[in-house]
Amino acid sequence: MKKKVNAAILIIGNEILSGRTQDKNLSFISNWLNTKCGISVKEVRIIPDIEKTIIENVLQLSKKFNYLFTTGGIGPTHDDITAQSISKAFNVKYEFHSEAYEILEKYYGKKKFNDGRKKMAKMPKGAKLIYNPSSAAPGFITKNVLSLPGVPSILNSMIENCKRYLIKGLKVHSKTINLNTVESNISKKLGQIQKKYKKFVDIGSYPFFRLGKVGVAIVTRSSSKFYLKKVENDLKKLVKSKNIKLFTIKKNGK
Amino acid sequence: MKKKVNAAILIIGNEILSGRTQDKNLSFISNWLNTKCGISVKEVRIIPDIEKTIIENVLQLSKKFNYLFTTGGIGPTHDDITAQSISKAFNVKYEFHSEAYEILEKYYGKKKFNDGRKKMAKMPKGAKLIYNPSSAAPGFITKNVLSLPGVPSILNSMIENCKRYLIKGLKVHSKTINLNTVESNISKKLGQIQKKYKKFVDIGSYPFFRLGKVGVAIVTRSSSKFYLKKVENDLKKLVKSKNIKLFTIKKNGK
Repeated sequence: MKKKVNAAILIIGNEILSGRTQDKNLSFISNWLNTKCGISVKEVRIIPDIEKTIIENVLQLSKKFNYLFTTGGIGPTHDDITAQSISKAFNVKYEFHSEAYEILEKYYGKKKFNDGRKKMAKMPKGAKLIYNPSSAAPGFITKNVLSLPGVPSILNSMIENCKRYLIKGLKVHSKTINLNTVESNISKKLGQIQKKYKKFVDIGSYPFFRLGKVGVAIVTRSSSKFYLKKVENDLKKLVKSKNIKLFTIKKNGK
Repeated sequence: MKKKVNAAILIIGNEILSGRTQDKNLSFISNWLNTKCGISVKEVRIIPDIEKTIIENVLQLSKKFNYLFTTGGIGPTHDDITAQSISKAFNVKYEFHSEAYEILEKYYGKKKFNDGRKKMAKMPKGAKLIYNPSSAAPGFITKNVLSLPGVPSILNSMIENCKRYLIKGLKVHSKTINLNTVESNISKKLGQIQKKYKKFVDIGSYPFFRLGKVGVAIVTRSSSKFYLKKVENDLKKLVKSKNIKLFTIKKNGK
């Protein structure tokens, strides 16, 4: 029987912390992990390019969760220090990975394979590669830590190559029910429904204002379709009793 | 003389972790804190709506940084548990704040002031209010922890009301130099420049692909305009020596 499997994401980069760059990797990785692998992301941290900080967070999160994904810091420049930091965290050598070296040398050609590019072949000793079909430079897995680049288009192209290293868990199914109401109109009854099914289903409530419509999105999540249906039925009763307009019901919305 | 002042952000919400909702508050808060208050965001964590997890993270981050901003979880529904969790974290009562109660009662009118809405007036004992000009329900500050809502438009309208609670620090100035090159072409020299000024200036290197152009954005940051200018001059020399096309130089880019 499948178990619950979880993961954390460590986003490494001053540019995200400063607000210069909007992170797009969290939602992509989280959605992929849940739908393709049945793995739930339980914590995300965003930290600067500081070795000591990376080491601390890699050790804490890799211990606390089944898998840790890191994004960013595996390029050719001085501020790309993820590989060396992970090496120090796990007390292994930071050295050239022979296959990664070959891949990069072939991709750039011997003449253009300069020091910056060579740096991208240096990894924690014993790391296994996560192949990169779009720009060659591979990611890598060290123990339960999978390291990917920060550029979203490159990361997206590599994600399927993470699958072989992951144990599949229980998929979380979800359903989103969009209602034409305000949260405080349903909060009491919604709380009662959550209490009734708290062991099986998570219910979230999110107000929205879009296209001139005010509404609430009720998001239900569970690894059990049976209980998800039960909650849906209770929600439909609540909607009817309050005479609320139901906009849409969407399966497996994020 | 002004000192360095830092902050962390704790984003509370299953909807961000699952990838359903794209966070927009981090970049807004981080940019506002730096430009208006001279406060640098040094860590961000995104966690689920679980009381124990909120308590742990509030205690860790409020101890580690000068200020902690929390977003999300202060609405009327059962999954809004930020205020009660912070009360438990600091071991103070979770109770009605008389001024918040008055504000909300006046806003909704006595008849429509139901239990869900009343819940938004419950806060950690001794909390001070962060006024909300757009939808009345106030945020609050408990010790060094400022709690704001998750809906970006509401949060944005409240941010100026945080200022009175914050000590101003040293503003970080930044300059972004966009070059028509690839990272590995400049990585060695760039590393040398960073080493030379490592006590005073942070240099980040970010590849980009946009509008059909390949390039690298060099972002320099420092509280000293003097050293920022020195780094800019060294970068211009590097650009010239490599015969690289310089796209733009922008001051105070994020």
